[in-house]
Amino acid sequence: MFDKNYLLPSEALDRILSVISAPFLSDERLKIEECYSRIAAVDIVSPEDLPAFSRSTVDGYALNSKDTFGAKDTIPAYINIRHEVFMGASPDFEIKQGEAAKIPTGGMLPAGADAVLMLEHSQVISPDMIEVTKSVAPGENVIQKGEDIKEGEAVITKGHKLRAQDIGALAGIGITEINVFKKPIVSIISTGDEIVSASNSLNLGQVRDINSFVLSGLIMEHGGMPAKKGIFKDDYEIIKKIIHESLNDSDMVLISGGTSAGAKDMTAQIIDDIAGLYGGGGVLFHGVSLKPGKPVIGGVVNNKPILGLPGHPAAIVVCFNLFIRPILEKLSGLNGKNLDKSIKAKMAKSIASAAGREDHIRVYLEKHGNELLSVPVLGKSGLITTLVKADGIVIIPHGKLGLDKGEEVTVKLF
Amino acid sequence: MFDKNYLLPSEALDRILSVISAPFLSDERLKIEECYSRIAAVDIVSPEDLPAFSRSTVDGYALNSKDTFGAKDTIPAYINIRHEVFMGASPDFEIKQGEAAKIPTGGMLPAGADAVLMLEHSQVISPDMIEVTKSVAPGENVIQKGEDIKEGEAVITKGHKLRAQDIGALAGIGITEINVFKKPIVSIISTGDEIVSASNSLNLGQVRDINSFVLSGLIMEHGGMPAKKGIFKDDYEIIKKIIHESLNDSDMVLISGGTSAGAKDMTAQIIDDIAGLYGGGGVLFHGVSLKPGKPVIGGVVNNKPILGLPGHPAAIVVCFNLFIRPILEKLSGLNGKNLDKSIKAKMAKSIASAAGREDHIRVYLEKHGNELLSVPVLGKSGLITTLVKADGIVIIPHGKLGLDKGEEVTVKLF
Repeated sequence: MFDKNYLLPSEALDRILSVISAPFLSDERLKIEECYSRIAAVDIVSPEDLPAFSRSTVDGYALNSKDTFGAKDTIPAYINIRHEVFMGASPDFEIKQGEAAKIPTGGMLPAGADAVLMLEHSQVISPDMIEVTKSVAPGENVIQKGEDIKEGEAVITKGHKLRAQDIGALAGIGITEINVFKKPIVSIISTGDEIVSASNSLNLGQVRDINSFVLSGLIMEHGGMPAKKGIFKDDYEIIKKIIHESLNDSDMVLISGGTSAGAKDMTAQIIDDIAGLYGGGGVLFHGVSLKPGKPVIGGVVNNKPILGLPGHPAAIVVCFNLFIRPILEKLSGLNGKNLDKSIKAKMAKSIASAAGREDHIRVYLEKHGNELLSVPVLGKSGLITTLVKADGIVIIPHGKLGLDKGEEVTVKLF
Repeated sequence: MFDKNYLLPSEALDRILSVISAPFLSDERLKIEECYSRIAAVDIVSPEDLPAFSRSTVDGYALNSKDTFGAKDTIPAYINIRHEVFMGASPDFEIKQGEAAKIPTGGMLPAGADAVLMLEHSQVISPDMIEVTKSVAPGENVIQKGEDIKEGEAVITKGHKLRAQDIGALAGIGITEINVFKKPIVSIISTGDEIVSASNSLNLGQVRDINSFVLSGLIMEHGGMPAKKGIFKDDYEIIKKIIHESLNDSDMVLISGGTSAGAKDMTAQIIDDIAGLYGGGGVLFHGVSLKPGKPVIGGVVNNKPILGLPGHPAAIVVCFNLFIRPILEKLSGLNGKNLDKSIKAKMAKSIASAAGREDHIRVYLEKHGNELLSVPVLGKSGLITTLVKADGIVIIPHGKLGLDKGEEVTVKLF
């Protein structure tokens, strides 16, 4: 049933990735508050040191560490408390030999001091003198000027996806606006003579559009901007017109539906015909060794990826993970580690797979005592509820004939 | 240094979770397009069967399976093709004994038919007759009416976080608006005499507010709505007033900063004093066996959680994961499996931990051939760049004295 001549999913993906080339998207300048999960469009270099001054990390006494050398319980050192450092203020005094200043956590180290003695390691013996019973090393309990970020250092590199802490770092160095890549716009074209809108009532024989809602959510989750183009009849001219329009106003085009043999061939034909108008590109693969998702079509026209997706919801999700997500990430300018979020679990039952194809099994997770079990969700890939019940996907590679009960697997979480 | 009498983080969390009680939030009615990642406020019951009719899953012939029983290469069955099913239409004919109708994938099964024969298993021998060389089981290649979702079935249960496929399932049954819980509003109060806004230029001794940006991002990521209240001086009356206001207009209150001993005690005092005004509640813990994050304060006033957070960014992130996130999830009505997204890796070097405390180590991940290494990020917890460089956190439990080089660990990814 699975032709050895079909490509593996990874080979199919490579065909698309290798022909689309940067630069893809222009950038936009936004306030950092709006940049969570966005991709930095340039290296962001610090205009200043963070912190801008050496700070204490404890409540204690700022002093010259030399004055404490050799101090211990039996031979304490005695230090004069001459000054106090206040939060948020620059000390207007200098620490001289044998002197110290009271300093709070976060306070600025005064001139002449090179370390902070923790309150706990001193004894107040008079209002202006402490006994020190432990020596302090130079730099101890101090964050040095520029220790966090140095002026001129690249804090964020181009292509980095900005997390909460990255935005925090930018705030810390006074950068309140940055350039991020615009989000790739992904057209979603729903096709099928039987498909009607979710808000429609149904005639017998009709079904509502599910896939555009699934695709929209996944696209948003992975940094894209979905553009639903609507539902179209399986007609050469109609589909060709909307694909052509979508190539003009978006960065990637998805055609969902067309599960029947005739419809699939028509989608491929239209992609090639439009490529002809642009003078190049076209279909790069038609069918892969994959279940579910075998009939997927991939192509590129005018440097823009086009995918023809099978109509089954489970196939849509599998094709999203295997093809759409990596393409979207390349288009979006992402240049980071791609750490797939996953969890280890043990198979609750054995499951077979045909040789030569990659099987994507929907599973849900169940805790049994200390063990996490991965339970296959049964049901045809055309059933949306198989995805609703699932927590993630387990992949059986093409060289493997199945999974054994009790075998440890990696579940890619939704 | 760590008092055995301090609570473990999990014990501290339980103190808060056990005193805040549902119901927390009212709900709002939104279009399903706006409900990705939102929490269902009610069970959502299907008004209809999905599909509303039995459908073919292949291109082939709809027939009565009995007519194919015993058919094989040597003894084929012969069937009359009398009709054709069109996509999106209800067949206006009935399949009689010895008859079949051409049917496309997704087509509606006509009356009288109970299965579909795949095109591949038949041979056209005249325009109105096929030869069948394989028997078909009843129901084969058919999705039955209601097989995906049955009328009256709960598709989504209250407390479920809606993913792309869940929204798709709702679209499939014609539900275009649903009730979801409102997002919990989380006040963020930044305190510290040295703290200024990110947009300010700095005087010596001042630092910019980093933590409110880190907290806002994490709160949004986990379903809350951050409400930044601004930056306030470490003054009893000022802080008391803003906490009081925040208790009125939000569902949870975070106070960031106040790292010095005096400031910490003041925050705890204010929480207890305000609790007095409400006639109950107050501080539930002050300090936990945790690094970084030891000085965290937790309390509840008027059924609303209040947390006093240490000023160091790394401590903020650790306290978010251990305390704020689970509290936020309870407040948000989430009632799902809590699958922490994580990845297994091997420690690149050994690292020590003090007995009796839980250590949260920032790490970055590095691929070495087939091995994923977890490399500790060095640097004080006051440095925001230790978080910028990190990909996640490894926890050393309180009973463990450290991690060995090569030891397998679970990295909780950011």
